[in-house]
Amino acid sequence: MQLEEIIKQIQPLDKAAMQSALARQNMLTKPQGSLGRLEELSIQLAGMMANPLPSVERKAVIVMAGDHGVALDGVSAYPPEVTSQMVLNFLHGGAAINVLARQAGARVVVVDMGVASEIEDASGKLIRRKIGLGTANLAKGPAMTRAQAEESIQSGIEIAEAEIAQGVDILATGDMGIGNTTPSAAIAACILGHAPSEIVGRGTGVDESGLVRKIHAVVSGLKVNKPNPADGLDVLAKVGGFEIGGLAGVILAAAANHKPVVVDGFISTAAAMIAVALAPAARGYMISAHVSQERGHKLMLQWLGLKPLLDMNMRLGEGTGAALAFHLLEASTRILREMATFSEAGVSDKETASS
Amino acid sequence: MQLEEIIKQIQPLDKAAMQSALARQNMLTKPQGSLGRLEELSIQLAGMMANPLPSVERKAVIVMAGDHGVALDGVSAYPPEVTSQMVLNFLHGGAAINVLARQAGARVVVVDMGVASEIEDASGKLIRRKIGLGTANLAKGPAMTRAQAEESIQSGIEIAEAEIAQGVDILATGDMGIGNTTPSAAIAACILGHAPSEIVGRGTGVDESGLVRKIHAVVSGLKVNKPNPADGLDVLAKVGGFEIGGLAGVILAAAANHKPVVVDGFISTAAAMIAVALAPAARGYMISAHVSQERGHKLMLQWLGLKPLLDMNMRLGEGTGAALAFHLLEASTRILREMATFSEAGVSDKETASS
Repeated sequence: MQLEEIIKQIQPLDKAAMQSALARQNMLTKPQGSLGRLEELSIQLAGMMANPLPSVERKAVIVMAGDHGVALDGVSAYPPEVTSQMVLNFLHGGAAINVLARQAGARVVVVDMGVASEIEDASGKLIRRKIGLGTANLAKGPAMTRAQAEESIQSGIEIAEAEIAQGVDILATGDMGIGNTTPSAAIAACILGHAPSEIVGRGTGVDESGLVRKIHAVVSGLKVNKPNPADGLDVLAKVGGFEIGGLAGVILAAAANHKPVVVDGFISTAAAMIAVALAPAARGYMISAHVSQERGHKLMLQWLGLKPLLDMNMRLGEGTGAALAFHLLEASTRILREMATFSEAGVSDKETASS
Repeated sequence: MQLEEIIKQIQPLDKAAMQSALARQNMLTKPQGSLGRLEELSIQLAGMMANPLPSVERKAVIVMAGDHGVALDGVSAYPPEVTSQMVLNFLHGGAAINVLARQAGARVVVVDMGVASEIEDASGKLIRRKIGLGTANLAKGPAMTRAQAEESIQSGIEIAEAEIAQGVDILATGDMGIGNTTPSAAIAACILGHAPSEIVGRGTGVDESGLVRKIHAVVSGLKVNKPNPADGLDVLAKVGGFEIGGLAGVILAAAANHKPVVVDGFISTAAAMIAVALAPAARGYMISAHVSQERGHKLMLQWLGLKPLLDMNMRLGEGTGAALAFHLLEASTRILREMATFSEAGVSDKETASS
C-alpha cells in the first residue's frame, strides 16, 4: 500500500476490545491491578489488535542496515565497513539480536536499506532494498533526496506488510549502521527543538573529541539543511538515513494493520518520531522496549508519550532491547488468556470476602 | 544439611570465573559494555555458579504458603481462607505464577509451610511442611517459637537441596499468605530501624483504615516482642511467618550450593533480609527480580545492596516478578554462550579500526 493510504488507514485503538480485556483482568485470581504494567500491556495490546484476547506468539524483528556519509567525519568508534560485516554476522546467526530473538521465538528479517558496499549473501536470506551506497554527509548537505526518503519509507511498508501477510502478530524494529546515532540525534534535535548537545551521546563509544565532532556534525547539519520539523519527509531526507526511513515505514505499516510494534532504542526511536511526524495516530501502536544509555533518548520517549518497559543500560541497537521486551509482552497476553478466574478456581474475591 | 553448616559453607563469588566471563564478553561482536546489565548479569552468574560459561536453563520457583494470626486483625483486603484456596489454584495451574513459570520453562514447587487448614491435594504435588496452623498474632506476642523459626528455615534448606540434587540451575522464591505483608514490614522495620509507617504499604489493597490497622499491628508487634535486629532467628520467630522462614532457608541453601536465587518482591525480600542477618555472604547469590509497588521495598533492596531488574508496578508475590526476571537472566547467559566473537565473525574491532 502507498504511504498516503497507509497514513489514512491508521485507526484509534479499539475501545471495546480494551474494555473486554480489562473486565477479564478483573475476574482473574489476583487482586485487581496487582500485576501492574503486565495488566496495562494486555489491555493496550487488545486495543491495538482489536482483539479482546490478543496473542503475540508469532514475532519478527526487522533489522535494517544502512551506511552514513557523516561516518567519514569520525563520529563513530568503529570503521564504516563494520556495517556490512555485521549484516553478514546477522545472516550467519552470530550477533546479539540473533541470540535474543532465538530465545524469544522471533524471526530476524535482515534488510540492506543502503549499505555502502555490495553484500555477498550465501544464505539467500538478505532482503535487498538498497536506496543508495550510503547517504551523503548530512553535515554538508541533504543526506538524501526527498524521493529517496519516500522510497525508504515505502520499502519499510512493503517489508512489514509481507511479514503481516505471512501471519506475524507483532513486529519489532532493529538497526545497524556505523554512524547512525548522528542522524538519529539530528532528527531528534530538529523535532524536539533542543540543542544538539542535549541529545548527542557517545553511540558505540566515541571518546571526548569524537563526541565534539558528533555535536558539531549535528549543529552543522541542521544549519546547512534547515529541515522543517513539521514535515517528517523533509527531516528524514535532510538529516536522516535509509535504514531510519525504512524503520519509519515498518512502524506505519504495523499501525495501519492493527499490529503492535516494539520500538527498540535510540535509532528506532528517531524512526518512530519520523513516523509520528507523518501520522500522529501511529503513536498508539508503539511500545517502547527500553530506555537506552544514549543521551537524549529519554527526551525523545517523552515527546512520543512512551514509557519504556526496561532499563538495562543497553546501547547496542539491532533490536536487542525489543527482543527482551517480547518476553514481557508475551507474559501480558498469557496472563490474560491462561489464568483462572475467581469462580473457575473457587477463590474468594475481595468483594465477597467474609472478613 | 543443617543450618549452621549451610552458613559456614557459603563462599564468596568465584573471581576467576568472573574474569573469564568478562574476557569473553569483550571478544563478542558488540561494543564493549553495550549490553549493559545483561553483560553484568552474565559475569555475576559466572561468579555465583563458579562457571565461566554458566547456564540457567533448568529453573524452579519455590512458592511457600503460610497463614498469619495477625490477619484476623483486619490487615488484609482478603479473608484468610484465600491462602488455602490459592494453594489449590497453584496445584491446578491456574494462578499467575503458573502461567509465567510455564512461559519461562520453570517448575513450580508448592509448599505448605503453615496454612491454617488441612489442604486436600488431589494432584499429589503439594509438599507438606506445615510448622503450625498459621502463626500466632505477632501484634500480641511472638509469631512462633525459636524452635519453629529454625524448623521453618531447615525445611526451606531441605526443599531447595532436593531441587538442586535434581539438577536445577537457578532457584526463585515465591510466597502466598493472606496478611503476610504485615510480618514482612515488621521484619524490615526492625532490621532497617525505620518507623513502620515508612515501610508498611497497602498489600493486596487495603483501604485507609486497613492501612492504619497494619501500621498499628507492626508498631505493637515490635513493642511487645522487642526482636533483636542482629539475631535473624529472633526477628523471624517474633514477627515473621512460616513461609518467610522457609524462603530464607531456600536462599541460604542456594548460596551454599553455588546457585543463583532470584528474590521476588516484598515478602521474599523480607526473607532475604533474614537470610543476610544469619549469613551476610548469602547476599552475593541474590538477584532482585523487581521493585514492587509496596511501600518500603526500595529501602529493603538498598539495605541488601540489590538493584532490581524490573519495575513493572507489580505487587502480587507468588514469584511472579522472579518468573519475568528469568527471561533476562537466561538472555545474559545465552549472549555469553552463543554470540560470535570478532574473529569468528570477521568483524573489525574498535582497536583494529582503520579510521
